[in-house]
Amino acid sequence: MPIDAGLLERRLDELYAIGDRGLYDSAWATALDRVERWMKDAGLKTRRDAVGNLWGRAEGADTGKSIVTGSHIDTVRNGGRLDGALGIVAGLTAVEALLRDKGKPRRALEVVAICEEEGSRFSTNFWGSRAITGAIDAVDGDIAAAMRERGLDPKKVSTAARDDIDAFVELHIEQGAVLEAANRPLAVVSAIVGTAHLEVTVTGRRDHAGTTPMDMRLDALAGAAAMVQAVESITRSVGTPAVATVGKLEVEPDQINVVPGRVVFTVDLRHSELSGRRALEERIRSRCATIAAERRLGLAIRTLQDKPPVAMHAEVRALLARAAQECGVAAAEMVSGAGHDAQILAARCRVGMLFVPSIAGRSHCPEEATSPEHVELGTNVLMRALELMAY
Amino acid sequence: MPIDAGLLERRLDELYAIGDRGLYDSAWATALDRVERWMKDAGLKTRRDAVGNLWGRAEGADTGKSIVTGSHIDTVRNGGRLDGALGIVAGLTAVEALLRDKGKPRRALEVVAICEEEGSRFSTNFWGSRAITGAIDAVDGDIAAAMRERGLDPKKVSTAARDDIDAFVELHIEQGAVLEAANRPLAVVSAIVGTAHLEVTVTGRRDHAGTTPMDMRLDALAGAAAMVQAVESITRSVGTPAVATVGKLEVEPDQINVVPGRVVFTVDLRHSELSGRRALEERIRSRCATIAAERRLGLAIRTLQDKPPVAMHAEVRALLARAAQECGVAAAEMVSGAGHDAQILAARCRVGMLFVPSIAGRSHCPEEATSPEHVELGTNVLMRALELMAY
Repeated sequence: MPIDAGLLERRLDELYAIGDRGLYDSAWATALDRVERWMKDAGLKTRRDAVGNLWGRAEGADTGKSIVTGSHIDTVRNGGRLDGALGIVAGLTAVEALLRDKGKPRRALEVVAICEEEGSRFSTNFWGSRAITGAIDAVDGDIAAAMRERGLDPKKVSTAARDDIDAFVELHIEQGAVLEAANRPLAVVSAIVGTAHLEVTVTGRRDHAGTTPMDMRLDALAGAAAMVQAVESITRSVGTPAVATVGKLEVEPDQINVVPGRVVFTVDLRHSELSGRRALEERIRSRCATIAAERRLGLAIRTLQDKPPVAMHAEVRALLARAAQECGVAAAEMVSGAGHDAQILAARCRVGMLFVPSIAGRSHCPEEATSPEHVELGTNVLMRALELMAY
Repeated sequence: MPIDAGLLERRLDELYAIGDRGLYDSAWATALDRVERWMKDAGLKTRRDAVGNLWGRAEGADTGKSIVTGSHIDTVRNGGRLDGALGIVAGLTAVEALLRDKGKPRRALEVVAICEEEGSRFSTNFWGSRAITGAIDAVDGDIAAAMRERGLDPKKVSTAARDDIDAFVELHIEQGAVLEAANRPLAVVSAIVGTAHLEVTVTGRRDHAGTTPMDMRLDALAGAAAMVQAVESITRSVGTPAVATVGKLEVEPDQINVVPGRVVFTVDLRHSELSGRRALEERIRSRCATIAAERRLGLAIRTLQDKPPVAMHAEVRALLARAAQECGVAAAEMVSGAGHDAQILAARCRVGMLFVPSIAGRSHCPEEATSPEHVELGTNVLMRALELMAY
């Protein structure tokens, strides 16, 4: 029996109608209550842990570690209908169908609505999955206050840690246009990229735009522009899966008639292999140094973040590929350029992810969409994978 | 008899000690009172016109139009000791010396402290000189209120217009490093550049920095960086006196992990010849269009300002060069890259300007300085020129 695709889409609509959900805000609470009701309707036993992750559990015939599926309940501001929500609703719908059709599982089977992944309200990311891995040592005052408003005790955060999960499998939208461009309906994720964030400060000399001949200038923006160009051209020459983005750039003094004296910009660098990312970063740093020296500009590069890539577990990848094949689809294999809870949970259990295509690659915006056929296919493959693992 | 160089420097110190002077603010009023006292001490008859320009006049033996020297009394914020102030103090000191040594002039001789040139307080420029040419039609509410605080009647602005000035000669600091680099102590200005201000909007598509491969991006900042580079390289290839500056640049959404969807930047374009500037602008527009087309980016270019260059009067230029020669100096000839009151007054009278070197080209900042020898030389040449015209 396939999953109930109509129910799945209606549930996605219901969550989307609640609106943007920031960690612990009222829309977040409404959404979590809704999901808990659906979990109970599906026959799952629910509980909320110390940070507000919502768990729905079906006990297994055997003892031992759980098989878990799900995703995050929070959204970015002005976000879309599927990011996070799809993984929860699809996981729940798949588990519901399994319990109905196959009865009690051999292994405990759980669905989780993770409280936060996006940095949706506070400057934190992966709040829920970090709590599950026991990685949260301290709770900031603002977050603690918001927790108390929802009846959660910040002092008990450590109790959210779990060491009884065998595998975590997450269905997610791709959030890019790779699958669509390749005309593939599904992918098994091989790894989640590591991300380095650099802050580059270029120092020149502010000068009068009228009285300073071109050859007497130390123009910080002209130098920064050459560096932005270099980031792009080097990364293009390295090729897939390397990506690099200059997303922020600030000019000082930012006046129409003053030669810029200082520019600060960021570089977001990603690659599925740590060595590949390090090599890319090295080339970019070296080229920026050359440009600065040629133009007699000051240059300072600071690392804001340096997260290694995370491989998905080989056994889970193979199992997901097999599940896809049994559903009549040859899944593509791809690297995730975005971060996901699976990369955090990988520290404590085997992890795997499935991607379905994003129409026109749109995500984190109201235009975020995936065709109902792809949603249904992804959920069926997820169900088959859960069956292979838990039954 | 040469001018009293010590007195000149002390007067510059006194004005600088008053601090930054915004149009009609209390420092501005204090400075104007101080200059008026000096004018009276020099035997000049003073009056303030409807916008607060301060005039000190020595009647001539003949009737007819006046010979005028001076500059603006206002300063930029965090400004220096010489911009504007030098032209007033040097003019006054020169006229004082002439009256003392040569007696009553043949032509009426005037010193003017122009109330505003810098946009120092309100978003207006050349307020004083525009009033002298009768070019002010309306007074904004904020400016009108500030005028009333100083006892000036905004309704009478048109009475500041004059048609009885024969020539206006202004000594100013270069505000650049051209004279210093060429080791020249003085220049006669041949023209004041025209300035065009363009606002360039580059539209791409905001995308996830992780999930969007390099070859699927429409990165507005990468495109804008190529355009910034093009502005610089085209202008360098055109050579002196062309200058172009990208001074402002804004990125949207300006987030570290988002491919920029939109960039707006400005281009400040200057050239002493209108045809030269138009040709430069045309090349920049064309190259930006090519870059946008190659990258499938949207491009919109809006002209914010388009002021033609203003030539200094040939007779006044020749007379200033002769005065320099008679003071034992071969004056350089150069184009002013900055705007000055002379360019406005050129609509109503013959105009000319002398430049003295700015140390390290610094201006509009506390480091603004000119060596006392250059200040003295410039003032002596100005005095000789005024003598040639008025006696």
